[in-house]
Amino acid sequence: MAKTYTFNEVQQHRSPESCWVILYGNVYDVTSFLPNHPGGSKIILQLAGTEATEEYDPIHPPGTLEDSLPPEAKLGPIDPSTLPKEEKSPAQDGGKTKKEQEEESEDAINSLEECLNLNDIERLATKKINRKAWGYYYSASDDLISKRLNNSVYSSILMRPRVFVDCTTCSTSTTLLGNPVNLPIYVSPAAMARLGHPDGEHGIAQACAKFGAMQLISHNASQTPEQIVADAPEGQVFGWQIYVQQDRKKSEAFLARVNKLKAIKFICLTLDAPVPGKREHDERSKNVGANLAVRSSVQEGSASTTSPDPAAASGGVGKALFAGTAPDLTWKTTLPWLRRHTDLPIILKGIQTHEDAYIASCYSPLVSGIILSNHGGRAMDTAPPAIHTLLEIRKYCPSVFTTIEVWVDGGIKRGTDVVKALCLGAKGVGIGRAPLFGLGAGGREGVERVLEILKGEVETAIRLLGVERVEELGLRHVNARAVENMIFDAVENPGRERWGMWVRSKL
Amino acid sequence: MAKTYTFNEVQQHRSPESCWVILYGNVYDVTSFLPNHPGGSKIILQLAGTEATEEYDPIHPPGTLEDSLPPEAKLGPIDPSTLPKEEKSPAQDGGKTKKEQEEESEDAINSLEECLNLNDIERLATKKINRKAWGYYYSASDDLISKRLNNSVYSSILMRPRVFVDCTTCSTSTTLLGNPVNLPIYVSPAAMARLGHPDGEHGIAQACAKFGAMQLISHNASQTPEQIVADAPEGQVFGWQIYVQQDRKKSEAFLARVNKLKAIKFICLTLDAPVPGKREHDERSKNVGANLAVRSSVQEGSASTTSPDPAAASGGVGKALFAGTAPDLTWKTTLPWLRRHTDLPIILKGIQTHEDAYIASCYSPLVSGIILSNHGGRAMDTAPPAIHTLLEIRKYCPSVFTTIEVWVDGGIKRGTDVVKALCLGAKGVGIGRAPLFGLGAGGREGVERVLEILKGEVETAIRLLGVERVEELGLRHVNARAVENMIFDAVENPGRERWGMWVRSKL
Amino acid sequence: MAKTYTFNEVQQHRSPESCWVILYGNVYDVTSFLPNHPGGSKIILQLAGTEATEEYDPIHPPGTLEDSLPPEAKLGPIDPSTLPKEEKSPAQDGGKTKKEQEEESEDAINSLEECLNLNDIERLATKKINRKAWGYYYSASDDLISKRLNNSVYSSILMRPRVFVDCTTCSTSTTLLGNPVNLPIYVSPAAMARLGHPDGEHGIAQACAKFGAMQLISHNASQTPEQIVADAPEGQVFGWQIYVQQDRKKSEAFLARVNKLKAIKFICLTLDAPVPGKREHDERSKNVGANLAVRSSVQEGSASTTSPDPAAASGGVGKALFAGTAPDLTWKTTLPWLRRHTDLPIILKGIQTHEDAYIASCYSPLVSGIILSNHGGRAMDTAPPAIHTLLEIRKYCPSVFTTIEVWVDGGIKRGTDVVKALCLGAKGVGIGRAPLFGLGAGGREGVERVLEILKGEVETAIRLLGVERVEELGLRHVNARAVENMIFDAVENPGRERWGMWVRSKL
Amino acid sequence: MAKTYTFNEVQQHRSPESCWVILYGNVYDVTSFLPNHPGGSKIILQLAGTEATEEYDPIHPPGTLEDSLPPEAKLGPIDPSTLPKEEKSPAQDGGKTKKEQEEESEDAINSLEECLNLNDIERLATKKINRKAWGYYYSASDDLISKRLNNSVYSSILMRPRVFVDCTTCSTSTTLLGNPVNLPIYVSPAAMARLGHPDGEHGIAQACAKFGAMQLISHNASQTPEQIVADAPEGQVFGWQIYVQQDRKKSEAFLARVNKLKAIKFICLTLDAPVPGKREHDERSKNVGANLAVRSSVQEGSASTTSPDPAAASGGVGKALFAGTAPDLTWKTTLPWLRRHTDLPIILKGIQTHEDAYIASCYSPLVSGIILSNHGGRAMDTAPPAIHTLLEIRKYCPSVFTTIEVWVDGGIKRGTDVVKALCLGAKGVGIGRAPLFGLGAGGREGVERVLEILKGEVETAIRLLGVERVEELGLRHVNARAVENMIFDAVENPGRERWGMWVRSKL
Repeated sequence: MAKTYTFNEVQQHRSPESCWVILYGNVYDVTSFLPNHPGGSKIILQLAGTEATEEYDPIHPPGTLEDSLPPEAKLGPIDPSTLPKEEKSPAQDGGKTKKEQEEESEDAINSLEECLNLNDIERLATKKINRKAWGYYYSASDDLISKRLNNSVYSSILMRPRVFVDCTTCSTSTTLLGNPVNLPIYVSPAAMARLGHPDGEHGIAQACAKFGAMQLISHNASQTPEQIVADAPEGQVFGWQIYVQQDRKKSEAFLARVNKLKAIKFICLTLDAPVPGKREHDERSKNVGANLAVRSSVQEGSASTTSPDPAAASGGVGKALFAGTAPDLTWKTTLPWLRRHTDLPIILKGIQTHEDAYIASCYSPLVSGIILSNHGGRAMDTAPPAIHTLLEIRKYCPSVFTTIEVWVDGGIKRGTDVVKALCLGAKGVGIGRAPLFGLGAGGREGVERVLEILKGEVETAIRLLGVERVEELGLRHVNARAVENMIFDAVENPGRERWGMWVRSKL
Repeated sequence: MAKTYTFNEVQQHRSPESCWVILYGNVYDVTSFLPNHPGGSKIILQLAGTEATEEYDPIHPPGTLEDSLPPEAKLGPIDPSTLPKEEKSPAQDGGKTKKEQEEESEDAINSLEECLNLNDIERLATKKINRKAWGYYYSASDDLISKRLNNSVYSSILMRPRVFVDCTTCSTSTTLLGNPVNLPIYVSPAAMARLGHPDGEHGIAQACAKFGAMQLISHNASQTPEQIVADAPEGQVFGWQIYVQQDRKKSEAFLARVNKLKAIKFICLTLDAPVPGKREHDERSKNVGANLAVRSSVQEGSASTTSPDPAAASGGVGKALFAGTAPDLTWKTTLPWLRRHTDLPIILKGIQTHEDAYIASCYSPLVSGIILSNHGGRAMDTAPPAIHTLLEIRKYCPSVFTTIEVWVDGGIKRGTDVVKALCLGAKGVGIGRAPLFGLGAGGREGVERVLEILKGEVETAIRLLGVERVEELGLRHVNARAVENMIFDAVENPGRERWGMWVRSKL
Repeated sequence: MAKTYTFNEVQQHRSPESCWVILYGNVYDVTSFLPNHPGGSKIILQLAGTEATEEYDPIHPPGTLEDSLPPEAKLGPIDPSTLPKEEKSPAQDGGKTKKEQEEESEDAINSLEECLNLNDIERLATKKINRKAWGYYYSASDDLISKRLNNSVYSSILMRPRVFVDCTTCSTSTTLLGNPVNLPIYVSPAAMARLGHPDGEHGIAQACAKFGAMQLISHNASQTPEQIVADAPEGQVFGWQIYVQQDRKKSEAFLARVNKLKAIKFICLTLDAPVPGKREHDERSKNVGANLAVRSSVQEGSASTTSPDPAAASGGVGKALFAGTAPDLTWKTTLPWLRRHTDLPIILKGIQTHEDAYIASCYSPLVSGIILSNHGGRAMDTAPPAIHTLLEIRKYCPSVFTTIEVWVDGGIKRGTDVVKALCLGAKGVGIGRAPLFGLGAGGREGVERVLEILKGEVETAIRLLGVERVEELGLRHVNARAVENMIFDAVENPGRERWGMWVRSKL
Repeated sequence: MAKTYTFNEVQQHRSPESCWVILYGNVYDVTSFLPNHPGGSKIILQLAGTEATEEYDPIHPPGTLEDSLPPEAKLGPIDPSTLPKEEKSPAQDGGKTKKEQEEESEDAINSLEECLNLNDIERLATKKINRKAWGYYYSASDDLISKRLNNSVYSSILMRPRVFVDCTTCSTSTTLLGNPVNLPIYVSPAAMARLGHPDGEHGIAQACAKFGAMQLISHNASQTPEQIVADAPEGQVFGWQIYVQQDRKKSEAFLARVNKLKAIKFICLTLDAPVPGKREHDERSKNVGANLAVRSSVQEGSASTTSPDPAAASGGVGKALFAGTAPDLTWKTTLPWLRRHTDLPIILKGIQTHEDAYIASCYSPLVSGIILSNHGGRAMDTAPPAIHTLLEIRKYCPSVFTTIEVWVDGGIKRGTDVVKALCLGAKGVGIGRAPLFGLGAGGREGVERVLEILKGEVETAIRLLGVERVEELGLRHVNARAVENMIFDAVENPGRERWGMWVRSKL
């Protein structure tokens, strides 16, 4: 039987030559695994010699340890009495500045019941989750310009309510890729749900089941797809998000596994983040609570190298998730490859220009739909909000709307935001941070509260527009001139000629 | 003779099976009335077993109790000595945040005399009224975007003063639906005036009489129409606002009663709030001072139901008022029905698009006028300010101005705001919150101060424009380009073709 | 010889029946003068029975007392020992809020030397002058929207500097109405200079002499024209501003007096304030330091009267100055009348639309020039900045620039502001508050500092534009697109047709 | 051997008749040099009688003393024990206000490692450098409007990322005037690097060498060109900036010296500051730590003189640098003169209009390129950001881009800013303040950190745009409509006709 180790013994193994960590009460020798860690070896070395369960658990699905390490790597149990006493957790003050704390003290929200809108949910979650989770959920690229634009663009669009219309009945039901759903709102494939609450992605699934909402499962989910869809009722709709791995075999294996799950109705291929953006909130929060040397992501821009180095991707939770993601996807090669490994409908996430929307529509029926998304402002800062791209398509190539389904995500805070996107041509509207903050605020019930709030707001908005069903919503119901005045103007950009050639070269 | 009850006895009856409340010193058994309460049974159950007069009185006209309950429901007097001692009233601090209080402490306004403008009036009223009234008056939907737009849109319009014009005399007189008035400003039909001051709607009527201003009586007035118009001098002009009830018989009975009042010159049919908006300030303030379980309005958006449930409408003062309001009004059915029950001119309130304005004008002479209104930003948030709709009509169907009268409301803070609306085509300009805050600041005299301030500002503005009578005001007197650049652009919205069909289908 | 009075005796005479005041150490019986006071009797009654010199002196030119009262009104000297001890002057804290004081404490400016720009001058003056003067200088109408626009419009115009141009020499000299001046900047006719500093308008004249700048003498100057131009060197240029009085004889007498002063080269007829605007800062500050009953200007808008009542004009320093000003000026009657009483060139101040600019140009040569002005934002709030009117003229009737001289004022803070106005077509640029704040900051030397700063900034700006003389400045030197996008758009305003008729009716 | 002097003796010589200063431990008699000092005699007289090394050293290249003074001027060593004890250095609190200090205390950055972006670098440098250096680096003209526009204009341009593009490899390499460089980013010719850190310009050169970035050496560098390029590796690219001196012989001598340095590949002629702007931060900070009488730059605008007086140019570090700079450069005279004295390519810095860009292109091949620059907002305030000029050229004379190279500088904070400029037509992008703050934050290593951060950000941005090489970047990759709506509109400016004549007159 395995011997019991002391913390002091483990502390001797903190180098690439011999690297031990403590996980779930056992000591593991992970030296041989270092070069294979998808997140790079640095992240593990930073935790070498320590009790790393708190760091490890919420971002790895169960079974990861067993899949990655040979049995002999598990050396034996740690003697808990030898572990250092935990210091005051940074999570207790949430790691926020004095100003942030002060703002919160006024007008406090302490329960889901008191949350009347999505901002309340975020405020409640911010109190409850630790700084690391907050940093990951809150963060966006660079100066958060796209994130802010995502939110503010909806406020600048005005509604055009019709009167004297019978609004006795009203329905939020629709179909997404032919699947009936009770809401035009779906949960976007956000990673790491257990970071905010142990209910994790499965908790989100339960909430979606209650409201008949669709859920996209993140490739980086902290639970396995099988766990997430486990007890889904008949008719619940899931999609599965794929980040194609540099090692295509891994992706193919995962696809084969997903193909077997009947609840998963389509594959969502994410394109908007071929390389990680720079999320400074995330990078900074990473350091809190772990007294570790940090090598920031900006060091990728080193003097001597110009190809992306996954081993250097140590700039926060977000960067770690990108390890192993393939940067070499193309229209002509990736789509046929993907079709060979699944019969499920394919939807492309991350379209940010009307040109790419048009190309995608040319690939119909191989492509069934697109998600206009700037990755929640987390990839390229100053990338356009989805609403810009929606209006660009409307202006330059409206045929896209009749060829494939167009969904949008990013910045949804209100039911009116959802309705505005639908009016401008979206068939589905994704929410990413909201369900994560819902989880953080109260687990599964917090996500239910999010959906309950949005459903109520959507119904009110539809009724006040004088409409019964979401399918009736159209351009005439909104005044988007403030945005129309700001979208890409082809007349001022004669470079479009050459661009037409470029588009054709992709087909 | 009825026995005297103790508070403890009353406290035993707090369920749907047996529900007692104390009102005006008497105990009432309202159990049988619970299912019939227009505001839903929940509101009553929240007050069950308590002294509810403070909650009940300011929002029910006299006679309501007698009309609604059988004589035997009045059980008998309460023994006042058994009532719990009142806690410090929330009104004493007004329920405002520290920051709000601090801002007020500087530059304090303590009397009507010191009020130089409408913001001063609001500041003074905010000090005097309780949090519930403040919440109801102040609140608007969601994020208050429409409310803020209502205010700011006027500031963005510039005046174009003419010089070298004799402005010795100047008159603010005009006619509204043919009735001579001394001001182009009228009081909008805002509910619950006694919430702010016991003078209530009748106090407003007295102030209007003094200034020759027109008043619209709210369907939800806290005094009866008869009381309000009681001592109106010859020539004072009133309108009466109707929210059509689901039980049409009730509406017909009310119309019959109103038809008898000679001071009421027209009926104003409100269309902009077929379902209640979501007023979070109002919902939050509702809870202050009453330690009651709250079920927020957002729960309407429940997982299983998609039709509005009046019983669930417990989200604040505003929601309660909507109970029983019919959501099934239509051009083709409601107007003929209304004409059958009154010979008075009909004006439609809540038009928010040029399309609906045009349809209304096609119903002339059945329709005599329209009020462009987004319900003070209280129905659909991000609905357009009335000025947007005014400019839309000007652009797409200016014939409306010569067919029916066009009035506007929302966001009026200055005499220049009034004049700008008149320049752009409005015949009358409504003020809603201002007279309510005037009431709160000083009863009838506060409303007089509001009218006095506005009249003075309007006269100064007219003189500086080089105009003698309000009828002379025109497009040439304002530069509204900042707004013209923002209104609905039909060119960018090819959906208008189908819309034309829609318009024709309503006629 | 006159007896000596005690304060107690004087205090007995505080009614319209017997009204005494103490001025310059003597007691005056002003009862018979009450109905004739241009500022209304109320203002005097508020000071009845008191030592009023501090109130009286800075706003009345010398000789006023002698001209207005019969010799017997001067009753005799006051016994100074009987006067009440003065309380702590409100001027010591300047009457400003804590926040204003705090902001000043940081980065303090204590001398003219330390003033590097006009904001520094204003900050220094704000410290030195009393609240009444500050209120009068700072105030503008209503919400100060026009005042703020006046400032911000210049910041939104960009310069277009030319390079590789020899800028060794550079001159700020120009001519105004044919008179050579060293600066294109002139001092606007602002009233009440002695309110800020005893040097008064004569101090401004001395500063202007030093810099070769033109000065317009206010009709409401606190010194007589003779005093102001007293020691002007050969070639110094003055204009005299006239507010036509309701009693035309008074105006004619004043014109006869001004015609004799050789230094005065033209008459400036002010048109932009036929009735006073509403300056709330001014009205509020009026009450500080004088424990008097106040009847605010808003009471003009009384229920029963619609013609302006000078006696009621008691809303601050500004309102008092308007007393007796004629509101019945017209193109056809006033210009010929004025020409009959002076041979000097006539310039019209207060043009705010291109239509009026065009009419003025049609009256050339009777009219020699116009000043585009919204009265420093002090008449109609939301009136357009002069730059708007300048661009309107440029767009709709550019011939005005070649027919008459066009000057502008309002919002000048920097030399670049001056240069921008010149580029857009202005021949002269007026500064109003700046010299008053200069006076407040340091008397004559403060005004010199203002001119010194502006001259230096103008020279730098001209050089960096690659220009030698101000006459070379043109449209090509600025990018005013931000403003061009905002000016009155005739296309959107079909009312212009009727307006053309209106214009013709004035000729 | 020279005698040893006491501080008291030196203190006796503080007049234009006898002026001594202490430098590097020796006493110098600089009386005869006073009239020849390029910065004017005043600056020296302010330091007369004192130990001036701290003031002198960081802004004069080595050898200056020897070149400027005859050997006998060096009187002998000072007795250090007689020097007054140094007071608390203003640098210890950085001379910043309380508010500035407070903001810094939160979210503190203490090492280069912790700097994730250029704002972090500036924050760290602000802590470390003294107030004088901070004032010089931070300052811009007047109200800092152009400086702020420089920054904000980039945020208002949106990216248009392409997806499904292989971004495995990506290169930031390009050529500038035919010289291969690893970055499209170069260091702008900012003066006085040793003010921030003793590593000075040579430290910048070492950092540039590491990253293959180009450096422009300031005419006012605090080290000699020979020192700066001393150990440059083969292939490192430098340019040398010339401010043409009024005494052309001096300029010619300097050019002859520069011509000999092989590392210097071109001459950059600065045109955007023929006279100094007014940098108030710089002027104010000058006074801190030196108890000297100050004569502000605004006094240039004196009543009697209109030609620039170098001796009066004492308004801060910036003004001192301008002393002796020629204001009489012209297209027709200066370019041929410059060609006579160097064979190196010539690039013109400071173009701010498309007209001047077009003229420059007509002078090709005499002119090889232009730098669009408003001198970092330090010359004319409200001058346009380089992006405006770039879009003007694109709109009115795009042939410029194919005739000469167009570089831009001003306001670069992010890699996305760099990429946006390249998309709109820039070939190179200059950074000025960033490397200076980098120096201040950590000497040579701080500059390396700046380049490392920017390189990383540029690579991420390029990849997310779906581009491999910077040459592929084009108009289709950005949505600059917010800026396009704001640039100079020729249609609204009919003065362009005459301007065409003007342009032709320069050729």
